[in-house]
Amino acid sequence: MLKESIKEQILIKVKGEAFKKHPFFYLYDLSNITSKLELLNTYAADNISLYYAMKANSNFEILELIKKHPNVKGVEIASSGELDIALSHFKPLQVIYTGPGKRPYELELSLNNKIRFLSAESLTEVYRISELIEIHNLGKADILIRINPNYDIKNSLKKMGGISSKMGIDEDRIIDVLEEVLKFKNINVAGVHVFAASGIIEHKDLLEYVEYIFRLVSKIESICNREFKIIDFGGGFGIDYSCANKKFNVEAFFNHLKMLVDNFQYNNKELVLELGRFITAEAGYYISQIIDIKESKGKKHIIIGGGINHIRLIRKHPINIIPMGNRLIYDKQPAVKDEFVEIEGPLCFGEDKIDEDIFIKEANIGDLVVISHVGAYGYNVASLEFLCHPKPNEYVCCNA
Amino acid sequence: MLKESIKEQILIKVKGEAFKKHPFFYLYDLSNITSKLELLNTYAADNISLYYAMKANSNFEILELIKKHPNVKGVEIASSGELDIALSHFKPLQVIYTGPGKRPYELELSLNNKIRFLSAESLTEVYRISELIEIHNLGKADILIRINPNYDIKNSLKKMGGISSKMGIDEDRIIDVLEEVLKFKNINVAGVHVFAASGIIEHKDLLEYVEYIFRLVSKIESICNREFKIIDFGGGFGIDYSCANKKFNVEAFFNHLKMLVDNFQYNNKELVLELGRFITAEAGYYISQIIDIKESKGKKHIIIGGGINHIRLIRKHPINIIPMGNRLIYDKQPAVKDEFVEIEGPLCFGEDKIDEDIFIKEANIGDLVVISHVGAYGYNVASLEFLCHPKPNEYVCCNA
Repeated sequence: MLKESIKEQILIKVKGEAFKKHPFFYLYDLSNITSKLELLNTYAADNISLYYAMKANSNFEILELIKKHPNVKGVEIASSGELDIALSHFKPLQVIYTGPGKRPYELELSLNNKIRFLSAESLTEVYRISELIEIHNLGKADILIRINPNYDIKNSLKKMGGISSKMGIDEDRIIDVLEEVLKFKNINVAGVHVFAASGIIEHKDLLEYVEYIFRLVSKIESICNREFKIIDFGGGFGIDYSCANKKFNVEAFFNHLKMLVDNFQYNNKELVLELGRFITAEAGYYISQIIDIKESKGKKHIIIGGGINHIRLIRKHPINIIPMGNRLIYDKQPAVKDEFVEIEGPLCFGEDKIDEDIFIKEANIGDLVVISHVGAYGYNVASLEFLCHPKPNEYVCCNA
Repeated sequence: MLKESIKEQILIKVKGEAFKKHPFFYLYDLSNITSKLELLNTYAADNISLYYAMKANSNFEILELIKKHPNVKGVEIASSGELDIALSHFKPLQVIYTGPGKRPYELELSLNNKIRFLSAESLTEVYRISELIEIHNLGKADILIRINPNYDIKNSLKKMGGISSKMGIDEDRIIDVLEEVLKFKNINVAGVHVFAASGIIEHKDLLEYVEYIFRLVSKIESICNREFKIIDFGGGFGIDYSCANKKFNVEAFFNHLKMLVDNFQYNNKELVLELGRFITAEAGYYISQIIDIKESKGKKHIIIGGGINHIRLIRKHPINIIPMGNRLIYDKQPAVKDEFVEIEGPLCFGEDKIDEDIFIKEANIGDLVVISHVGAYGYNVASLEFLCHPKPNEYVCCNA
């Protein structure tokens, strides 16, 4: 069920002039983001550094909110475009840069802007970084080395480790590579980076993986005879898109993590946590008017104002209808009542679907469809220029 | 194999300043588009009206080229944004508007701008059109009525008919609906619109469908006691993405179509053909430098500068490598030689793939990857703002 406060905010935006022509928008509930940051703040130990993964949502009002939160150490970016945005909100030392296939220009920009560190994902990147430091007379730079661990994380939304991957350096080769990297005079390997999966709901699955990583780091440290100050173990905190009341247990995760840290005597290490989805996903709503309802071969189709050009859903999201009590356009106008329907965008492609076979209690042309949990990988992932429809506006609300 | 003339053009763009920072771009071979238009012109009978389906590629230089071709009657659009672009290149009477879920504002804009006709895809749209004509005192407007035919077209890339669909009005209900629409005093039903599939390679498959449509139109005309001047049978001409030398036989298609037209005594009807993919797909190339090559668990990964943020491929495309003979960055730098590899974008998501298990003869970091047949549904469909990477430039070449 949609919160009353959100419904109120939606109805305010619907009354605006923009909605008459372009009846669709995103709405971000800033209070939800703040409560996520508070939750993390309450349970995270002092040696946890929280970075916001900008790729989840780069809306500037969200960035401003996150920047101001005392618990947020900075922002994790993955392109020159994100660097540009990051530097207009954060200090360079608050920026960390990860991602495979960084262009030489991106490495150069990052080094010249003296961001906190780059995570190097291959020897090629390390050589390029070293050469650029020399060319620009930058002294010495901190980097992390990204490992692709031999670990298949359980029940994750997306696997990024344990398989042949473009990301990081295989665990089996990491010692050889590190020994080469440690020889560079102008590069300081400040730590290691691993990001094996995302969207994990069971905190125990993530803890097992963290324990694996801690063991791996200890092994590497002992073989290389060297201590790493930073372990960036990525993100992974999941969101329950199905609303089946499953929640990633932040308190239990951090409590057990503390025990792991004590066991490994890692209290002097900085543990970097990159969270994107967990912080913004549940704050976002996509709203569109119902443009038409059609019956075809025994099935009703609800057509809304935006499809994959506004939102590319890869799973079922909670969907609510807000009745608007619009006048009938004509007498026999189709409506939906207690039935399983398709919800689709306006593009002339069958793939342009929002949801299939979803049960809708009641819906009429002119009512609002509200899709929840779209604050991460929503607006940014959409095919925004497809068919040249106007882009959805992005509004924020509920800032305390 | 890549044509020498295209390779030359690519190498010119690569020398440009933009490529140093952002080593990726689209290139459109205008001569290829012209030759497609010439081919259509050679074989199409006089009663065929060719409209360019702008959704395939709305690049303005492509639109300018197409507009100037004497064989092109106009442009087929599907959004207010496309209308805006269309009206800056074409006359209103050259514009036809199709697509499910047109917003009332879009209908209003189209009517006020007096485009040639709207294809109405539901009774809701017809009622809205009639009301808007009245409100704006526009007299009378031509429309087409879109039918969802009971016909499952063979071997198509995408089905848009014969199934429960958001597009058009079911064939089983078309007589009832038409009888209602024909009562509107301010609406003239100029014809019918059907678009059942796209990407058909065998012209006979498309002809069987056209014959089905002709029979359906004759039946409707006889029941409604009314003649329709226009049949818009959509597009459907396919492109052979696999380069297995299969070609849609334009000559045979139009020759057989002429016979069908004679048999049905349809010489006085205008047959509207909306083609997008067929006209622009083979003209387009996406080019990116190889940023990195990695080996992971026995498989090599070629990482290029753009992934789903620049191009969303849904099938295998021809891919060529242009060697650039760059200096080695370091001695043991990985390279590809006679092996099956992954080609991937730079985004930190496993789904960000260009091609899987593709055989590459030779490739080195700094070489160019050239993806062919991306002139339709390439740039426009990409998730252009994902991760805030710069957008690829779009260049044109080879204009006679």
